[in-house]
Amino acid sequence: MSTYHHGNLRQALLEEGLILLAEHGGEFSLRELARRVEVTANACYRHFANKDALLMALAAEGFRRLRANQAKAEEKAAKDSRLLAGGYSYLHFAHDNPALFRLMFGGIQSRGRSEELEEASRASFDTLKMAVAHVQGKQVDDSSVSRAALRAWGLVHGLSHLLLDGLLEGQGEDPLILAESALQEAVDQVGLYNYPSTGGHHE
Amino acid sequence: MSTYHHGNLRQALLEEGLILLAEHGGEFSLRELARRVEVTANACYRHFANKDALLMALAAEGFRRLRANQAKAEEKAAKDSRLLAGGYSYLHFAHDNPALFRLMFGGIQSRGRSEELEEASRASFDTLKMAVAHVQGKQVDDSSVSRAALRAWGLVHGLSHLLLDGLLEGQGEDPLILAESALQEAVDQVGLYNYPSTGGHHE
Repeated sequence: MSTYHHGNLRQALLEEGLILLAEHGGEFSLRELARRVEVTANACYRHFANKDALLMALAAEGFRRLRANQAKAEEKAAKDSRLLAGGYSYLHFAHDNPALFRLMFGGIQSRGRSEELEEASRASFDTLKMAVAHVQGKQVDDSSVSRAALRAWGLVHGLSHLLLDGLLEGQGEDPLILAESALQEAVDQVGLYNYPSTGGHHE
Repeated sequence: MSTYHHGNLRQALLEEGLILLAEHGGEFSLRELARRVEVTANACYRHFANKDALLMALAAEGFRRLRANQAKAEEKAAKDSRLLAGGYSYLHFAHDNPALFRLMFGGIQSRGRSEELEEASRASFDTLKMAVAHVQGKQVDDSSVSRAALRAWGLVHGLSHLLLDGLLEGQGEDPLILAESALQEAVDQVGLYNYPSTGGHHE
């Protein structure tokens, strides 16, 4: 009954898997996924040996999408607000995809990581490092860039979790706006990212 | 068979519940808890109507312990490193009590919050606000104190999650040390917390 080429089916399974994840937060079977994509369970198992393999692939797909969102947001932003634009896109990604975000961080990390997942999550952090390097006017492999990127990641990741877990509610302001403001204020406070005084690139 | 006074039994159930949580990550029954404390299941149900009620109480107990740890660490620290000491104690609390930390943030927050839990988590955030107010030389109800406290919370919370979820591994340094360094560098970068130039209190 399948009319998919091999590569197409995998992508179709991932697309539908993301929808199932958003609807049921991980409480679904590979059989259910196969039914929704209208292929046999066997065709599905050829791509994902078990549920964990699918979840791992969904997490990797999540990191690729997060990274694409960040890159797009940074591209559209003015030069001096790229880092903030990337941070907002991270926050919005978490806000719009809570189940996927939880899967990417935590849900799947504890069960070992596939090479695909390793690569996708490393690429996502590299995108952040490049944005920080750009802002700092430094090379991406400068150790101060890694450290500043970790501080930036820590902050945006913590705000995302506080937002998803309802800890920013009841403070008289929209939680997403509250998180955005905290991010903006941190970026405004030049020190967090070591903005160079000149803005020029140097070795 | 119980020799507990009412208040004592509740505390004994909480203590043992925390141990079970650390051992089984939430996968245990109220009956199992009663057995471990050597009381009847009925005696246990008098304190906690169901598993969710127990988990909610354990989360509240977690916030009280986190707060006590923070306060103790800040007390012992020199005046100008109180905030950092509080941050370290938050990070260490997460590191030493991963299942409890996950329950306090996320695990239980989505299932509604008891008054006890609300109060304990608010008190914990208030402790952070007081430390920030102290460092800034401002009143605790100053709006800039709340905002700086949220940035500090976001950072330490994000680093805690990245640490617990294994995202700080494979970077050639001990993950806990990496998280501590990120925290220290953020505090060193005066800007994040708006250290006052004088250190004096004013209205």
